[in-house]
Amino acid sequence: MTTQNHTDNLEKILGQSGVLRADDDLGRYEIGARGDAGKAAFVLRPTTTKETALAVAYCVQNNIHIIPQSGNTGLVGGSIPDDSGAQAILSLERINTVFEIDPTNKSAHIGAGIRLSALNQACEAHGLFFPVDLSADPCLGGMIATNTGGGRFLKYGGVRENVLGLKVVLADAQGTVLDLLCPLYKNNTGIDLKHVFIGTSGALGIVTEAIIKLTPIPQQSATALLIPSDIGMISPLLRALEMRCGDHLSAFEYMSGESMSHALAHAPSLQNPFSGGEDIPPYALLIELSRTWNARAQERSLDDMMQDILAEIWELPDAPLADAIIAPPQKLWALRHAISEGVQKSGKLYAFDISFKRGDVTQFLVHMQHALPARFSNISICDFGHIGDGGVHFNLVVARDDARAQDPAFEKSLRDFVYDVVVTQFKGSFSAEHALGRKNQPYYDLYTPETIKKIAAGLQETLNPAGMGSVKL
Amino acid sequence: MTTQNHTDNLEKILGQSGVLRADDDLGRYEIGARGDAGKAAFVLRPTTTKETALAVAYCVQNNIHIIPQSGNTGLVGGSIPDDSGAQAILSLERINTVFEIDPTNKSAHIGAGIRLSALNQACEAHGLFFPVDLSADPCLGGMIATNTGGGRFLKYGGVRENVLGLKVVLADAQGTVLDLLCPLYKNNTGIDLKHVFIGTSGALGIVTEAIIKLTPIPQQSATALLIPSDIGMISPLLRALEMRCGDHLSAFEYMSGESMSHALAHAPSLQNPFSGGEDIPPYALLIELSRTWNARAQERSLDDMMQDILAEIWELPDAPLADAIIAPPQKLWALRHAISEGVQKSGKLYAFDISFKRGDVTQFLVHMQHALPARFSNISICDFGHIGDGGVHFNLVVARDDARAQDPAFEKSLRDFVYDVVVTQFKGSFSAEHALGRKNQPYYDLYTPETIKKIAAGLQETLNPAGMGSVKL
Repeated sequence: MTTQNHTDNLEKILGQSGVLRADDDLGRYEIGARGDAGKAAFVLRPTTTKETALAVAYCVQNNIHIIPQSGNTGLVGGSIPDDSGAQAILSLERINTVFEIDPTNKSAHIGAGIRLSALNQACEAHGLFFPVDLSADPCLGGMIATNTGGGRFLKYGGVRENVLGLKVVLADAQGTVLDLLCPLYKNNTGIDLKHVFIGTSGALGIVTEAIIKLTPIPQQSATALLIPSDIGMISPLLRALEMRCGDHLSAFEYMSGESMSHALAHAPSLQNPFSGGEDIPPYALLIELSRTWNARAQERSLDDMMQDILAEIWELPDAPLADAIIAPPQKLWALRHAISEGVQKSGKLYAFDISFKRGDVTQFLVHMQHALPARFSNISICDFGHIGDGGVHFNLVVARDDARAQDPAFEKSLRDFVYDVVVTQFKGSFSAEHALGRKNQPYYDLYTPETIKKIAAGLQETLNPAGMGSVKL
Repeated sequence: MTTQNHTDNLEKILGQSGVLRADDDLGRYEIGARGDAGKAAFVLRPTTTKETALAVAYCVQNNIHIIPQSGNTGLVGGSIPDDSGAQAILSLERINTVFEIDPTNKSAHIGAGIRLSALNQACEAHGLFFPVDLSADPCLGGMIATNTGGGRFLKYGGVRENVLGLKVVLADAQGTVLDLLCPLYKNNTGIDLKHVFIGTSGALGIVTEAIIKLTPIPQQSATALLIPSDIGMISPLLRALEMRCGDHLSAFEYMSGESMSHALAHAPSLQNPFSGGEDIPPYALLIELSRTWNARAQERSLDDMMQDILAEIWELPDAPLADAIIAPPQKLWALRHAISEGVQKSGKLYAFDISFKRGDVTQFLVHMQHALPARFSNISICDFGHIGDGGVHFNLVVARDDARAQDPAFEKSLRDFVYDVVVTQFKGSFSAEHALGRKNQPYYDLYTPETIKKIAAGLQETLNPAGMGSVKL
């Protein structure tokens, strides 16, 4: 059968607007957030789990390779097809319904194609939100497939800790639907199967619906920029804060001077927090306290509490602080959120989303200040990220007019080098919260022990016999 | 080969104190916490993961059925052998080391045989604890196998949310060791395989070691007993509290009047909190606020905050409160923790550890006040539990001199009846936090959809080809 035959048949299942053909404009489905592009045979856009199951069954029966996609905001090539033009994208964007919000259960039943911002808008009237906080605005399906963590993981956990149930379509000839839509907080009646679908990049099934946990919206927050007296003081500062305000600490973000400079250069509307004319320091920490209530009569505000805590930390014998600037959340988060784009605009970007034991991150960063230039010249380290969870976005930038910027062999040797230091030397992770995807496949193959690979491959064979998706476990 | 041959061979692997024979006193291994008993061929007591792997390989090669056991405090017959006398208990009690506490990473690497109390004692010097709080004092291996939740799940989550990594021995002829001992908070590089071992009652492998998350010890707490104006007001009260002190609410426990009466009757040292001469109310809620710091200068204490919040709740238009008694944590928790034993002493106990959507628990309880006596006479409902998570220990008691107390057919029809209402009518769980075990096997078989059973059975075949343990998935 020709592609034309297939799209005609699939239109009978999904309706006319459910199928986009190669001669439609498929750009936003084919091009990833960092410009990686593939070529799709066509795009399927089911509106329900049932339609998804029928479309999947048709594709499996006809040997059409499916790439599941939700918001297509991922950074590791998980949701785009290869460049053969033979793979079909299955977009979840039309399964974007909030089926139910249950404020008593603090949960919502949603379609995988809903945007994070739309979800939070729908929940706001109940005083609730989904607490996985990201700079991007992905769809929930992709967040579940990548198990995103984000900037407030410290307080709320990531996607895994905030999902109660899933509905999943398996890539077999029947388009089997697994109904794991359990709304219960406590349920131990066998394997909690949802966990094999969370964070596995669609390699085991397509999540079409979910029941997620909701959390009361913070009513008050206070933020400060801390300048550590030395990079080695970051861990002691984190620990000092956690012991003093564990329940309230909702962010502990690291920003290198280089990354802040790029943010300030490329977003001129930003206010420079170092406005006293000081130089931008080599590193700073954005810390946030938050709570779900406003100060009552006689109760200290969070700003007061921030003052109290910083005063205590100034007095610590090991003098971890060089400076501290209390400033409003809006101002500091604007700086933090401008980094990613600022760094990207500054040249050719090589992004590494890595993590370590919390005490090891700064040791890795110090090591790389020497080890990277010793191996590669003229690379700028623009690092920042969720250091409170042991994570760092170790972003490297090469000038656009540098010949290496066009050389895939250079990228490969750079990635091989960095991940070797991360995984072999520091026992860290080569993907903290971006999960797998085409780009990380070689490192999965390299670093996953054979015993585990074999179990994972067996599970992929059982749940996804058609081998759907961009990742081979 | 005879049993004697086997124990001789196993002694060569585990040493003399590593094997207990049938003529030793095996009572504490063979008899479960609720008196269910089996008969073991012998008991193996390895001291390391490596010894465990060797012992398991030997048993698998020689067709000896292994029952893994840690603290043997479970209530569903998961850790005791059948009565054939042919099964071997593999006790983890000697793998009880704290290998490392990493205060910066807020984690500990431990052996599965360590008691919860011993773990917390070891962590105390660092100001940290393992926040899964139970009335019993189990070992960590069993807590992981059952994914226990406990009384502070509301704030800290259960075992699953507080485990970073595992080491697992598989029941195959090689005694394969799966090293999943990853200490990272964020790591998405494939299937997070540890989750299939958490909460599956040893049906997929024996957890011998774990890396667990630790949390700062609360420095201050305040408790109160709330008497709702109606049982239907329990959910609105929970929601009102969560919106007012979400970050601080660490317990929301339900105690029926019947259960409190039994606790007070059987633990005479308890102070009756209804000391003003009031009758014991039909239900009460123990609520706890806690935080990791003591009040600083000018800061409100938690006792003051409790006053403020209760004052706000008294003013609510739907009048959810009939009474509120602020009393010290020690006094109220003593009452709460005395219930389980008090109820058990009051007659022949039939325990149901069930859970619901949070809004459905009280509807179930109201329904059962009529439905149970309509079907069975003279059964006392002594219900209590973690209602803030939708859970309830629905404990039923029959007088010891009632002939039915000795009748297994009565127990079966009672269990069939209750679970049918729970699962079929209220879409709840037949095991909230006790997991599976011999006692729950029939209900797993009955209520698990075939599609899921097939996947689970396949995974059991892969990871536990010898069929070790007390549960068949």
